[in-house]
Amino acid sequence: MSDLKRAYNFNPGPGVLPLEVLQEAQAELLNFKGTGMSVMEISHRSKEFEAVIQTAEADLRELLGIPSNYKVMFLQGGATLQFAMLPMNLRAAGASADYIVTGSWSKTAVKEAKKLGAVHLAANTEADGFNCIPASLDLDPKAAYLHFTSNETIHGVEYFSEPTPPAGVPLVCDTSSDFISRPIDVSKYAMLYAGAQKNAGPSGVTIVIIRDDMLERVPENLPVMLDYKTLAASGSLHNTPPSFAIYMVGLVFKWAKKLGGLAAVEKNNRAKANLVYGAIDESGGFYRGHAKPEARSLMNVPFRLPSEELEDTFAKDAKKENLIGLKGHRSVGGMRASIYNAMDLEGTQELVKFMKDFQKKNG
Amino acid sequence: MSDLKRAYNFNPGPGVLPLEVLQEAQAELLNFKGTGMSVMEISHRSKEFEAVIQTAEADLRELLGIPSNYKVMFLQGGATLQFAMLPMNLRAAGASADYIVTGSWSKTAVKEAKKLGAVHLAANTEADGFNCIPASLDLDPKAAYLHFTSNETIHGVEYFSEPTPPAGVPLVCDTSSDFISRPIDVSKYAMLYAGAQKNAGPSGVTIVIIRDDMLERVPENLPVMLDYKTLAASGSLHNTPPSFAIYMVGLVFKWAKKLGGLAAVEKNNRAKANLVYGAIDESGGFYRGHAKPEARSLMNVPFRLPSEELEDTFAKDAKKENLIGLKGHRSVGGMRASIYNAMDLEGTQELVKFMKDFQKKNG
Repeated sequence: MSDLKRAYNFNPGPGVLPLEVLQEAQAELLNFKGTGMSVMEISHRSKEFEAVIQTAEADLRELLGIPSNYKVMFLQGGATLQFAMLPMNLRAAGASADYIVTGSWSKTAVKEAKKLGAVHLAANTEADGFNCIPASLDLDPKAAYLHFTSNETIHGVEYFSEPTPPAGVPLVCDTSSDFISRPIDVSKYAMLYAGAQKNAGPSGVTIVIIRDDMLERVPENLPVMLDYKTLAASGSLHNTPPSFAIYMVGLVFKWAKKLGGLAAVEKNNRAKANLVYGAIDESGGFYRGHAKPEARSLMNVPFRLPSEELEDTFAKDAKKENLIGLKGHRSVGGMRASIYNAMDLEGTQELVKFMKDFQKKNG
Repeated sequence: MSDLKRAYNFNPGPGVLPLEVLQEAQAELLNFKGTGMSVMEISHRSKEFEAVIQTAEADLRELLGIPSNYKVMFLQGGATLQFAMLPMNLRAAGASADYIVTGSWSKTAVKEAKKLGAVHLAANTEADGFNCIPASLDLDPKAAYLHFTSNETIHGVEYFSEPTPPAGVPLVCDTSSDFISRPIDVSKYAMLYAGAQKNAGPSGVTIVIIRDDMLERVPENLPVMLDYKTLAASGSLHNTPPSFAIYMVGLVFKWAKKLGGLAAVEKNNRAKANLVYGAIDESGGFYRGHAKPEARSLMNVPFRLPSEELEDTFAKDAKKENLIGLKGHRSVGGMRASIYNAMDLEGTQELVKFMKDFQKKNG
């Protein structure tokens, strides 16, 4: 391990994990807690795995301050499967659900929800190129729920205070790419869901947090793997769960607690984001951020350079400096720096230094 | 690592993995192929991960002899989600599908399929306590497909030659617990599926092998994560796949190839099964196997002792000898030895020695 040179990993997800989490997983990969087995080889019904999943849940409850009338589930299929499970479970036949569209992911959520029933768009910022949070909402007071995406991974726009649904309309959030990046008030939400592979762990597990009363809406006779009620009642153990991914998110939750919890995590994230946006704002237009300043994501920073040619050179030169994963999504173009929880200040400083040097050479 | 004492792991799944596979994963856990990142941290769109998933598929195609007119998918949700996806995708509205019920898993497959449409039972051995393969089938010549479970993990009954559906009726198999345990003729099947966590890797990935013509049946407007056509067309990369689990099954496929392929794997498995069933048959009735001899699974050997008290003692004493996971499923009772591909002859010999010693002391 002595020759390990860690990349500065700005991948949008799967992305960087805390080094000490990886080291812990590596150290016990062949012998989990003295069992003589890998954590991948133990039964999901064993007391050892029960401790893994229960500790992961308890630590997440502590980190996010999840009230006791919420269930936590560790599921499979990513946020994309939740796009379908959510309306299947919480939108009654004939009812309509409200969606706020602020980027590619919320747009896809709408597409999936429409396959199964009625959707009303409370707002859609596509005409603005998905660079902002909508100024006003057209809300249906009878909506089954109001859905929004707290952070758009591709467009780099983030909600810093929740939209307010009409009285009695539950608020549902896809928080995949800013999950556990800062404190939130869970009691404002009826449901939150997140693919783990940004801030919380490797891909292959999806965390769903749901208020108990929502489970009463679940219709009879859903396929069991698509049925929140059954999955919640079983403690995510109706069938064999993705054990290793759950183990890993548990280690990440422990790490976040050790850092000082989500207030400390947010402080780090704001410091890093300030560095990158600072480099953009101080570049005199050489770097142009995609999102409007007030909607700038703390997690994903998409930005453009004066030409596509320069953008290609930027990506290539960055790679030579061990700065990985900076090419933007094709739908926005240019670059994107994803600075998730596990990206440290040092890596962010390296990026900013590179941005400044690159501008000097090419500006 | 020098103090590593590996357990003899007879867990029914998640279960034992090849030691050299775990060692390889451990060695490169922090630095995958010189990237400076864990395989969990690389993008699923990177050339490095493309190589992982494409090599895994190519090795599986070679191991099983999968013809080129079949797609291979690495999905999530376990066999239990396939119980629903299969009828959603391949049974047209109003059509009926045939199911052979030989144990708990095929029974659950029927339960899920019934939620979504019509099922006809071609056979059901529950009255015999799920201890056999049915002698005859009542087949619907117009069935959307004929489904069977090649190995019942809980009841330990296994099909060694496929049931023959009527002409034109596609054969579909849940092969979760005997996947890649011996050569099969894939061309007899329209679709095969398997949760990885028995023979193929850790939990969290499900392998689906489907003949191209079946994809023409997929109805429009299914949720994208439940739509075989979209998932197959995307090469399992429609959304973020369970990267680490796919990486692990890839290592297991390489290991099986190195052993000499599935003919060699079967030879090992037969030798191990002969040892355990031999110990049962030579015990003069002290140990009683659950399955009828002609249906005895090479993978899961459920057996009873003269009393529940002795069964408890057996489990406890076995654990002291480092023989883990031998308690049977509550629905069958008694003991169960799961002797998957990665259980070696030495471990099986230790079990048989223990069985003989235990009988001497308690018989």
